[in-house]
Amino acid sequence: MTDTIEETAEFTPRFNDAGLIPVVAQDHVTGEVLMVAWANQLALDETLSSGEAHYWSRSRAELWHKGATSGHTQKIVQVLTDCDQDTMIYRVEQAGPACHTGRPTCFYREVHEGGTLTPM
Amino acid sequence: MTDTIEETAEFTPRFNDAGLIPVVAQDHVTGEVLMVAWANQLALDETLSSGEAHYWSRSRAELWHKGATSGHTQKIVQVLTDCDQDTMIYRVEQAGPACHTGRPTCFYREVHEGGTLTPM
Repeated sequence: MTDTIEETAEFTPRFNDAGLIPVVAQDHVTGEVLMVAWANQLALDETLSSGEAHYWSRSRAELWHKGATSGHTQKIVQVLTDCDQDTMIYRVEQAGPACHTGRPTCFYREVHEGGTLTPM
Repeated sequence: MTDTIEETAEFTPRFNDAGLIPVVAQDHVTGEVLMVAWANQLALDETLSSGEAHYWSRSRAELWHKGATSGHTQKIVQVLTDCDQDTMIYRVEQAGPACHTGRPTCFYREVHEGGTLTPM
């Protein structure tokens, strides 16, 4: 029986020492990566049960229902995990901008050799 | 003058306590997320100077030039950082499968409420 972490049908997320797992939020239509944040078990549970993206805010040390105050919610289309179950993807329908700067995505700058950034 | 970490043209990556920053490797054409791994300053430098994706292998504690042995290299098309410069995207042209399981991407399973996984 093949039941390694890569092949099992059982979700056993591998949280880090702080009890967190990184989450890539991706637009479910365009594939654009919107942001990367962190989830704990509670945030994963709330995401799967509510159908809206939840994270763990490391700065505020609290559950973060994205868009709860701004209205910029992320409706869950699919949740994925990777081969070794230590990373997640939320495929979402993003309401408004994903980034706190007001941009559609947090990834709006390209990095060049030598350490300069240019807008996308 | 606006020169916050969100608006500056200077790349000042915010590594974690272990000196690492998460990297999302993304197919530059389809937008598919291929894998998520970690980089340190050396891996970022090697990536930008060589034009091929480098990471830091946490399990082997060494620089990891992806594909150096398997041939499954990632040619760099663009490197991005996010608003607070604590996450990276490598937009790549992937040679062969990205995943060590032989699959095109590491994200081949969907997570369902209750803790079951199904193939994509």
